[in-house]
Amino acid sequence: MQILLVNPNTTASMTATAADAARRVAAAGTEIVAATSSMGPVSIEGYYDEALAVPGLLLEIARGEKAGAQAAIIACFDDTGLDAARALATIPVIGICEAALASVSFIAQRVTIVTTMERSRLPLEHLVHRYGMAGRAKVRAADIPVLSLEDPHSNARDRLRNEIAAALREDKAEAIVLGCAGMADLTAELRREFGVPVVDGVAAAVKQAEALVTMGLATAKRGAYAAPLSKPYRGLLEVFEPRSLTV
Amino acid sequence: MQILLVNPNTTASMTATAADAARRVAAAGTEIVAATSSMGPVSIEGYYDEALAVPGLLLEIARGEKAGAQAAIIACFDDTGLDAARALATIPVIGICEAALASVSFIAQRVTIVTTMERSRLPLEHLVHRYGMAGRAKVRAADIPVLSLEDPHSNARDRLRNEIAAALREDKAEAIVLGCAGMADLTAELRREFGVPVVDGVAAAVKQAEALVTMGLATAKRGAYAAPLSKPYRGLLEVFEPRSLTV
Amino acid sequence: MQILLVNPNTTASMTATAADAARRVAAAGTEIVAATSSMGPVSIEGYYDEALAVPGLLLEIARGEKAGAQAAIIACFDDTGLDAARALATIPVIGICEAALASVSFIAQRVTIVTTMERSRLPLEHLVHRYGMAGRAKVRAADIPVLSLEDPHSNARDRLRNEIAAALREDKAEAIVLGCAGMADLTAELRREFGVPVVDGVAAAVKQAEALVTMGLATAKRGAYAAPLSKPYRGLLEVFEPRSLTV
Amino acid sequence: MQILLVNPNTTASMTATAADAARRVAAAGTEIVAATSSMGPVSIEGYYDEALAVPGLLLEIARGEKAGAQAAIIACFDDTGLDAARALATIPVIGICEAALASVSFIAQRVTIVTTMERSRLPLEHLVHRYGMAGRAKVRAADIPVLSLEDPHSNARDRLRNEIAAALREDKAEAIVLGCAGMADLTAELRREFGVPVVDGVAAAVKQAEALVTMGLATAKRGAYAAPLSKPYRGLLEVFEPRSLTV
Amino acid sequence: MQILLVNPNTTASMTATAADAARRVAAAGTEIVAATSSMGPVSIEGYYDEALAVPGLLLEIARGEKAGAQAAIIACFDDTGLDAARALATIPVIGICEAALASVSFIAQRVTIVTTMERSRLPLEHLVHRYGMAGRAKVRAADIPVLSLEDPHSNARDRLRNEIAAALREDKAEAIVLGCAGMADLTAELRREFGVPVVDGVAAAVKQAEALVTMGLATAKRGAYAAPLSKPYRGLLEVFEPRSLTV
Amino acid sequence: MQILLVNPNTTASMTATAADAARRVAAAGTEIVAATSSMGPVSIEGYYDEALAVPGLLLEIARGEKAGAQAAIIACFDDTGLDAARALATIPVIGICEAALASVSFIAQRVTIVTTMERSRLPLEHLVHRYGMAGRAKVRAADIPVLSLEDPHSNARDRLRNEIAAALREDKAEAIVLGCAGMADLTAELRREFGVPVVDGVAAAVKQAEALVTMGLATAKRGAYAAPLSKPYRGLLEVFEPRSLTV
Repeated sequence: MQILLVNPNTTASMTATAADAARRVAAAGTEIVAATSSMGPVSIEGYYDEALAVPGLLLEIARGEKAGAQAAIIACFDDTGLDAARALATIPVIGICEAALASVSFIAQRVTIVTTMERSRLPLEHLVHRYGMAGRAKVRAADIPVLSLEDPHSNARDRLRNEIAAALREDKAEAIVLGCAGMADLTAELRREFGVPVVDGVAAAVKQAEALVTMGLATAKRGAYAAPLSKPYRGLLEVFEPRSLTV
Repeated sequence: MQILLVNPNTTASMTATAADAARRVAAAGTEIVAATSSMGPVSIEGYYDEALAVPGLLLEIARGEKAGAQAAIIACFDDTGLDAARALATIPVIGICEAALASVSFIAQRVTIVTTMERSRLPLEHLVHRYGMAGRAKVRAADIPVLSLEDPHSNARDRLRNEIAAALREDKAEAIVLGCAGMADLTAELRREFGVPVVDGVAAAVKQAEALVTMGLATAKRGAYAAPLSKPYRGLLEVFEPRSLTV
Repeated sequence: MQILLVNPNTTASMTATAADAARRVAAAGTEIVAATSSMGPVSIEGYYDEALAVPGLLLEIARGEKAGAQAAIIACFDDTGLDAARALATIPVIGICEAALASVSFIAQRVTIVTTMERSRLPLEHLVHRYGMAGRAKVRAADIPVLSLEDPHSNARDRLRNEIAAALREDKAEAIVLGCAGMADLTAELRREFGVPVVDGVAAAVKQAEALVTMGLATAKRGAYAAPLSKPYRGLLEVFEPRSLTV
Repeated sequence: MQILLVNPNTTASMTATAADAARRVAAAGTEIVAATSSMGPVSIEGYYDEALAVPGLLLEIARGEKAGAQAAIIACFDDTGLDAARALATIPVIGICEAALASVSFIAQRVTIVTTMERSRLPLEHLVHRYGMAGRAKVRAADIPVLSLEDPHSNARDRLRNEIAAALREDKAEAIVLGCAGMADLTAELRREFGVPVVDGVAAAVKQAEALVTMGLATAKRGAYAAPLSKPYRGLLEVFEPRSLTV
Repeated sequence: MQILLVNPNTTASMTATAADAARRVAAAGTEIVAATSSMGPVSIEGYYDEALAVPGLLLEIARGEKAGAQAAIIACFDDTGLDAARALATIPVIGICEAALASVSFIAQRVTIVTTMERSRLPLEHLVHRYGMAGRAKVRAADIPVLSLEDPHSNARDRLRNEIAAALREDKAEAIVLGCAGMADLTAELRREFGVPVVDGVAAAVKQAEALVTMGLATAKRGAYAAPLSKPYRGLLEVFEPRSLTV
Repeated sequence: MQILLVNPNTTASMTATAADAARRVAAAGTEIVAATSSMGPVSIEGYYDEALAVPGLLLEIARGEKAGAQAAIIACFDDTGLDAARALATIPVIGICEAALASVSFIAQRVTIVTTMERSRLPLEHLVHRYGMAGRAKVRAADIPVLSLEDPHSNARDRLRNEIAAALREDKAEAIVLGCAGMADLTAELRREFGVPVVDGVAAAVKQAEALVTMGLATAKRGAYAAPLSKPYRGLLEVFEPRSLTV
């Protein structure tokens, strides 16, 4: 089974971190094919970056499906471009936020998502609501820029730890969800340290993707996710005309 | 007062229809500056088109603000790219769906939105929910392609009428909201015909934009709508690097 | 255009404050006609005052419509008597709480309403829920009697400032809504002081009223807001028999 | 124990119907004291009548409490003036809609309220929501004027029966709630006829009132129901100045 | 009238406490028949105990109904086995949590339930949601084992008092609900001490049971509460085969 | 990896059907250990059967965990005893309804669950609400007894087909969820026949169980799912005393 993991930002080192996390949990027969978006922001922090990350994401999804991927993962915790990707692809597409929330919903009733920047808190609260976890999942921002997670000299990881401690103490969180793909490599360490379940969305998405493929399930192509209608696209984005990209 | 009206699809004739509707209700001192997106789909029908319409929209918003606009309107009923535009701009940005729902909320308790295609129904139901009208506003699709509204030989307008009649009879709708910018020119006619309030989002957005400018109110730039962080953008979308676009 | 502004309490100086705020934002051709209720409480603080303020309000709405007003504003933040007024009148009727929330919804995702007395907090929370802002708008009471806002020797304004500061710090409010018509004259000052959008419902209601009139929209007279049925009214309130008051 | 039953409309024959229903279920030691409002509409159909029925209701509540009543019932299914009455009185005040919904919630999961006029449907839907029965209780209007229930020549009772039959068939209602105090005398008959629980709010309110008195519980006088502040009332409604009415 | 009160745990002294509370409010003609479960846990603290308390509860309900009870009360604040009991019995069945919430809903808008153990907090939050009090009722745990309430040497009652004080101060609770049947004997004392309404679910359930019986109302036996289908039951639980237990 | 699948009813042939469905999707290294409850009803149809199925279920979960299972599945669509099982076990426990809803949430926005009996419809609606799919998932009952699914002479499968067809036509369902473990063998056939995704909860639960085990995640044992407290259990259910069953 081939699963495509797309990093919708343009920083290849973050793709590597996510791909490592994916491979750690992938089943024996699963190949993780990682792709970095070729256009757009180097990190996704807030609505503007998110919107501009979508075209590059869609391109990689279309390429990956043509190249034989049987499912796709969007490796950004905002679930950037999820609905558009589902309308475009015929293979299942999984967001790492929704996968993390689905997994944690089986093991805890009250959880806290710890994310990077305050400006990402409200978008994640919208996702919590959309995915039916309102009242069950809180969102906290550790106030750390996304790329600082990769900088060994930053105090980003300390701030993350402080916020997890606060979630356990003040929110009475029963489990923690890591709210950024760039935190995936910390999962095991934080779990040992805090003694509670710590969920990484990249790993969760790999297992959901495998599950859907094994069960023979793919996105329903009627209603909201019907294939894009054939029509002209103009200007800089001409290449996104649906018939160029759909299989 | 200068108000920018951006049509996020690339069909100039639809821009003209919307601009006409805007000018019909604009105050004496208000200038409506209409812009058509230079890139992306010729009509927005579903999630895929919507996502690809956002970059072109953002470009026009940035240009318009630099050129002196005091408020901006997104003239597509999906409120395409609204959050990204608000993060980018310092002037207020209004979606026509949210404006229509705000206006109709003052005059009726139960309303029906009549839109074009079934694939747009669920995205609009999400907007209804987001804007706090869940339980008050239903969405119906008349099953008409967006561009057929401009085709004198299509039966699009008959289908629209049938759906409005059904909304009044079956939903007990007290007022009707037209769920596509391309229907703006029909407002007065439908109001006379059905004898109930018929709300067009383009007109509503113009009045909301004027209201905010007059009151000296603009998007709060803390929290979710804080200005995009300065960072590199790569590839085809390099031009969207925040410092290129923000004022 | 003539817009009626009714102060539903019987204190004329508060009418003047609200009328001033209204005139500051009214369009060139708009005349604000202010009326003070002729019966009932001198201020509206809690459910009891609110209920007894309704008859006087309805009388002024009926008189105003007969005298040519094209829209009416209820200048009390409880939106006192709003539904009854909409059933009675054929012109649109706007509450200042709903207008303030509609305006602020275009510019911020999380807001705080700062009102006067604790006893008004729950009624306002009900309005927040009714107007679809649950989860987006918090309500704080500064513990100041309504009429103290007019008393230069009270510390009411200091308390209001303290509560705004707390809202920005603790609620992470992106914008502030002033929760009493008697605060309208402070809007500009507080906006400068705190550097965030501060919304006054009186101004917002004027612009919503102008918007509806310009668009040719008025209350839907089917369903919940159908005109009162003709029937006898008895005793002290005989004068409110519908056929005496409706146009 | 003395329980005050106030009919907030000014039709004494409806008071008698409600008082009969109340006495049929009252405990041995309970005296039902019935009062008809001395001012306002002869029936309550929609928001306008409801608002104008409140002053007369409050007067009877105040008089009744002074005369020794230990609890009060508002015998109109809109729960007219409930919040104001609770702020005014120190004895518990019960609405017949809330009492009916509380009782039926113990015996069925899905219920239908059958009321009189379409214009009362939305106000009752708001009550259903307020009382926590959203998703459990539907509202249907039989399209019968309130006073026609007393007219032996009208077809009101047939229409009521038809609507109950439709509720059982289409809504899969497990129990029926009668949505008007004027239907109270039909309860036993309809229960036999349809073979499902049929709940009358007047009877339910009597038992809730007795329950609260026996348990020594009365309205919490802190927060939303704190006693009205002492202040001047003017004009026609001067008599409602709080210190005139409170005990 | 005979009302069955079942203590679903197997500690007879707790049954006695609850029966005393029940008898204190029962009407002159009401006989309270108390039963202690013959199987299962000695106290109910969390989901596991709750599930294992249900069979013993159902047995007592079936026996009580056969012996002539006209209504049944489940005297555990988790409303243990409520739905199963309603499906089994033809007499009405009342939970003490739902009864307490119904009673307090008539006298306060914001309340706090103070329960025993943290592990019971989330189950009670689910009940609050189910009974339509979400947003109105908070749940606090005083961190006291259920049986310590009966131990004169424990500090359980002090902890309970501290939590009530915190609820009044921090939650702005207008009334308190005691979240354990074992607290019933403290009701009057705490009411005097704190000066706010304090509601005990056992007393509330007695009055609701009397109310339903007097009104001639019992569980609707269509839909969710239809009688159990006749079918074999095996092994240790053979005795629960429906035809053995139903009347 | 060893996964325990417990059929909480006492019909071994249904266990076999579910175990077959489980094995069809299990990964290469996964062993499915199937267990049939040794006590309770032969099928679970409604609240009464459900409650009496829990003790037998808990016994098998405890035995399975002791015997080395790394995760457990409850193979009844009511998710019978899920919370109690999670409190008891230290391995993750998955309900087939929650697993089916989690899987389908990744591939469709609007779905319909088709279950057996009307009396199961409301319990499933509660699960839909609990799992955050309210507004996304409808429940239909095909009016077929559970065991008739195994009877080659019944028309159960035709009725199921009719209800699926109605869901696609009337609910505009994008995917179908089979609402009974006994339907698991029909999944592939119905998918081919109707051309939409058809989700079976047994298969979904297997993949979720594997996912959690692979990721090293198990039930959070703080808060709602803390281990049962040690205490005496009496009578017929003495064997369920926590220290007898917990590992």
